[in-house]
Amino acid sequence: MRAALYQAAGDVTVGDVPDAALAEPTDAVVRVLRSCICGSDLWSYRGVINRPAGSRLGHEFIGVVEEIGAAVTTLRAGDLVVAPFQWSDNTCPACRDGVQTRCDNGGTFGAPGTDGGQGEAVRVPQADGTLVVVPGGPDGVDEKLYPALLALSDVAGTGLHGAVLAGVAEGATVAVIGDGAVGLCAVLGARQVLGAERVVLMSRHDDRAALGRAFGATDVVAERGEAGIEAVRELTGGRGVRHVVEAVGTPEAWDMALGMARVGGTIGAVGVPHTTPQLGLFPPFRQHLTISLGVAPVRRYLPDLIDRVLAGSLDPGPVFDLELPLEQVADGYAAMSERRSIKTMLAG
Amino acid sequence: MRAALYQAAGDVTVGDVPDAALAEPTDAVVRVLRSCICGSDLWSYRGVINRPAGSRLGHEFIGVVEEIGAAVTTLRAGDLVVAPFQWSDNTCPACRDGVQTRCDNGGTFGAPGTDGGQGEAVRVPQADGTLVVVPGGPDGVDEKLYPALLALSDVAGTGLHGAVLAGVAEGATVAVIGDGAVGLCAVLGARQVLGAERVVLMSRHDDRAALGRAFGATDVVAERGEAGIEAVRELTGGRGVRHVVEAVGTPEAWDMALGMARVGGTIGAVGVPHTTPQLGLFPPFRQHLTISLGVAPVRRYLPDLIDRVLAGSLDPGPVFDLELPLEQVADGYAAMSERRSIKTMLAG
Repeated sequence: MRAALYQAAGDVTVGDVPDAALAEPTDAVVRVLRSCICGSDLWSYRGVINRPAGSRLGHEFIGVVEEIGAAVTTLRAGDLVVAPFQWSDNTCPACRDGVQTRCDNGGTFGAPGTDGGQGEAVRVPQADGTLVVVPGGPDGVDEKLYPALLALSDVAGTGLHGAVLAGVAEGATVAVIGDGAVGLCAVLGARQVLGAERVVLMSRHDDRAALGRAFGATDVVAERGEAGIEAVRELTGGRGVRHVVEAVGTPEAWDMALGMARVGGTIGAVGVPHTTPQLGLFPPFRQHLTISLGVAPVRRYLPDLIDRVLAGSLDPGPVFDLELPLEQVADGYAAMSERRSIKTMLAG
Repeated sequence: MRAALYQAAGDVTVGDVPDAALAEPTDAVVRVLRSCICGSDLWSYRGVINRPAGSRLGHEFIGVVEEIGAAVTTLRAGDLVVAPFQWSDNTCPACRDGVQTRCDNGGTFGAPGTDGGQGEAVRVPQADGTLVVVPGGPDGVDEKLYPALLALSDVAGTGLHGAVLAGVAEGATVAVIGDGAVGLCAVLGARQVLGAERVVLMSRHDDRAALGRAFGATDVVAERGEAGIEAVRELTGGRGVRHVVEAVGTPEAWDMALGMARVGGTIGAVGVPHTTPQLGLFPPFRQHLTISLGVAPVRRYLPDLIDRVLAGSLDPGPVFDLELPLEQVADGYAAMSERRSIKTMLAG
């Protein structure tokens, strides 16, 4: 089968790889309908982190179950499914706590020895715990919903998780730091899932700001650093915001989050702290903050979010502003790396 | 009147100071019945932080209202009152959010220009918002309850707040780092106010461990560092604890807190991070932690805790293991600094 392959920084190709096949009785094989490129895929593409030459890529996909292992009980061949970006058994203590991204038997698609999402098919470990069936199946679900369903495999759930960690509830005022797909989905989740009343999006890109407004941002602040903090404080009567979603992970983004959080406020952080910022504890202590962090357990949110998408009440699909066939995946990486695309969907 | 005075590191005296007197219409003057020495008073006593020579000391006291300003409406001369260690108007946005320790009109007793608690009387600013009346008054409340009521002015509420920040609820398993008065009161609050089922106290001092057990600790771990983390993990099926109270504030205590918290767990931190530990964000991100910090808004808890003390269902009084007359305050500082006393109460 065909699949995207990482060759070197700036060099992604499509090549022939062994067909996805069952290895464990708890596996399923899923034929990919749509996959996409993640902001985190760009770390190796930009040479920020190392990745072995020839390794598989991608961890977000929707597809149709082709084959199931002997121990799989909740899936059938032909089911339309959404895969979260990590597999999990959904039964271990961490999963039962809703932290499927720390499953005792979990892992990430595209890691060495596994299939990546950017390919024609994927062996899915822990299939019962991982895959969530979309009612209606491939014949009953309009293809127009595929982008929205695909977004649920990572960014929609990750953005929502940021807002959940930030304690967002009905009527809340929220600031979102980061106008990538995750930040934009945090706006969407805060407003349309959790019922926030006011969402301030930090964005200096017109196209992203426009999508943020379409997703429900009530205010957009283009300034960064101290000026950005001041602008958010001005919007909130000088006191800052009660709920901040940090969807970047850099020290600069953390400084902004800490600076704009109101006394007693909460920062929900889903931006992987790759440059491992060091947080001096005195400022958040003085500000009485709650800081909640983690790689979003997207699996937790899938059943609810799939229902919302099918009901037409939630549409994260517009985060995809470029669609390419799998064979042109290299163009997608280039477009996202050069910020010509917020998020690129791959078909076929 | 007589009051404790800081002279230099290791040198505390009692001297004559101007009588406490009304300055603002929102003030009250309180004659002190009991006051005490705080672990934080030791920072200057040990020369860790600077303090002006001749400055006043102490911020914890109970007493009787002697005089009220023209604008005070909720107090009368003769009322028995508990003062939290900071004054607050209890009406500003921060106070309404339950963060009275960030009151717009707040301040700390003993700061320059104010009376300290370790003296015969105190001018209390924002008296309506600050002081909480003890039903029954000085004639109706048994003097035996004074230690318990005095403990509410800081350590009992601070310990409880740590457990609240750590998300402790009915049936919870909790670890408490710190066996000073605050840590011991965190044990008490977690067990007897919030209903925790299991409380692990980190303590290597027999007297403190014994008091911890009396307050409800179900397990005591004497090891520190990695060995302490391992011991707590062993007690919790290898996964660590869901709720950790950090009541020290040093980098070593933070390392222990981070190491023993279960995936998805919460650290509630009331130990002022005086040496300003730097927290690398990747470990708590990977562990999906929530970290909640701040100087305890003791005022928030006073009405409930006073009721519990009067009802006989809560007794933090035993944190006081030494009682001295005010004139011997120097002996109290020495005893606490040399760890011969957990907490010293001053009378008269």
